[in-house]
Amino acid sequence: MPDDPDEHFVIDTLLAGRPVSPATVARLDAGDDTAVLQDGTLVTTDTLVEGVHWDARATAEDVGWKAVAVNVSDIAAMGGTPSWATLALSLPRPIDAVWVADFARGLHAACARWQVALVGGDTTRSPGPIVVTLTLAGRAARPLLRSGAGPGDDIWVTGVPGEAAVGFFHGGPGLQALHRPEPPVAFAVALADGGLATAAMDLSDGLAKDLARIGDRSGVGARIDPAALPDSPVLASLADPLAARVAFGDDYQLLFTARPAARAAIATLGTTHGVRVSRIGEICAGSELELVGRAWPASGFDHFATGPRP
Amino acid sequence: MPDDPDEHFVIDTLLAGRPVSPATVARLDAGDDTAVLQDGTLVTTDTLVEGVHWDARATAEDVGWKAVAVNVSDIAAMGGTPSWATLALSLPRPIDAVWVADFARGLHAACARWQVALVGGDTTRSPGPIVVTLTLAGRAARPLLRSGAGPGDDIWVTGVPGEAAVGFFHGGPGLQALHRPEPPVAFAVALADGGLATAAMDLSDGLAKDLARIGDRSGVGARIDPAALPDSPVLASLADPLAARVAFGDDYQLLFTARPAARAAIATLGTTHGVRVSRIGEICAGSELELVGRAWPASGFDHFATGPRP
Repeated sequence: MPDDPDEHFVIDTLLAGRPVSPATVARLDAGDDTAVLQDGTLVTTDTLVEGVHWDARATAEDVGWKAVAVNVSDIAAMGGTPSWATLALSLPRPIDAVWVADFARGLHAACARWQVALVGGDTTRSPGPIVVTLTLAGRAARPLLRSGAGPGDDIWVTGVPGEAAVGFFHGGPGLQALHRPEPPVAFAVALADGGLATAAMDLSDGLAKDLARIGDRSGVGARIDPAALPDSPVLASLADPLAARVAFGDDYQLLFTARPAARAAIATLGTTHGVRVSRIGEICAGSELELVGRAWPASGFDHFATGPRP
Repeated sequence: MPDDPDEHFVIDTLLAGRPVSPATVARLDAGDDTAVLQDGTLVTTDTLVEGVHWDARATAEDVGWKAVAVNVSDIAAMGGTPSWATLALSLPRPIDAVWVADFARGLHAACARWQVALVGGDTTRSPGPIVVTLTLAGRAARPLLRSGAGPGDDIWVTGVPGEAAVGFFHGGPGLQALHRPEPPVAFAVALADGGLATAAMDLSDGLAKDLARIGDRSGVGARIDPAALPDSPVLASLADPLAARVAFGDDYQLLFTARPAARAAIATLGTTHGVRVSRIGEICAGSELELVGRAWPASGFDHFATGPRP
């Protein structure tokens, strides 16, 4: 989800005063893509708000798909397989029956795609926008965290980060990436189970911000080679796609680090699962995040609310 | 949550076309207060929307408390103990820092009250009302369902259904019941674990509607004695509290059925847990729901949206 500077205050306030919870419940509960419970269950929740996370170019079917996909992306980022979900749906009145049927079709297609069992939910009236919250659980044999990257590790991404940004700003074929993200679940699970990655997370807020999170949690810096970022016909429509690639987000691809010795195995895994993998840089000592030969484009969007910040 | 006729269409649409989910995930996934997963985990989700589920008389602290309590009530209705929760919070901008801090205080107090571990969440921007969705998991050794009531069973309620309605319509001391519900968790767990109840659910939509749900699921009718409904100083402020008692909801007390042989044990359990229990009628063959000597008051409110329907 797009990051909001104000979010930090809210998150800190909600987390800071929490009562001490029984140690039997959570193993990890903040700072990664999902919580990890003591029994190994992964849990995540993401909300999509009409006018904030989608606009009139998205069909109801897209919204239903994306509500599942963005949560599946968090589970995949931990190397996990999705399991069950609950859905909370707030709708204005009168209810638009066509919208609901289309939304359900996209939701069900995504549930079928990733074998998510929709086990419960709540429907309420909204006097404002449509609000969709999906909570998704999963399971990982060996959860991938953001904290394991070390100097000398390679930095990898899956897919083509930036295509969603092209869709947002220019429409056209990039809208498929924006509206129908396809997080690489099977690849991520194999990566985790094979012990091939040292750290991972999903690309939801753009490479610049998300890489900084791995840097923070792992206590390392990074050097990214802009020329190594994957290209595609969609990105080629831009004169300079750098900002789209690193400063937008909504990609729901995987950002991960791995030892150089794992290169061949990772390439094979990409081939096996039909997932494009690109080695885009390396982890360094220190805390600096360098984009070799370029300045980092300004990052931080409140995508559908105010457009890009200059 | 208040029931909405339109909800049925939405729920049917969301449930009907679901892909068949792996049998390994859900044991029960619709028709009870929570889903029951194969490993015994209970899961529920409830949303509170500003202007629909609360108005200006509720403090942010009340909202934080109630977001937890309404979900805890669902877990308790299954005879379960709450465990972990995720929170999705959509807030208008600019963020009201005082509101957030007060909300967090109520949320944390309720988490402490019922030992709920808040393990994750998402914060988003709302261009409309504040929207709070909490997803809560729990566990029951012997889940209580709505489907086990049989002719001759007693019908019981905990607490004093109707006080929340008094608060809604008249303010005053009833606001405590409306804004700070206290579902009887420990009592409900003991009731379930002791095998004392044949069916149960929580009173969220009022006795008339909720009793009909037990009737439907169990294939039985019921006879309620209005004189046996519990009284209180709050209810005594009304000339005729019958509508408040049976047609409003938001009580988050327990409605359950039990064999007459369990009467003494249930009374003892109430004393042990400091929970008022009232035997208000009996389950009958057939499908009729009778309120002895009275007509059922008109039920169905969209509480904060349009007020009571005549």
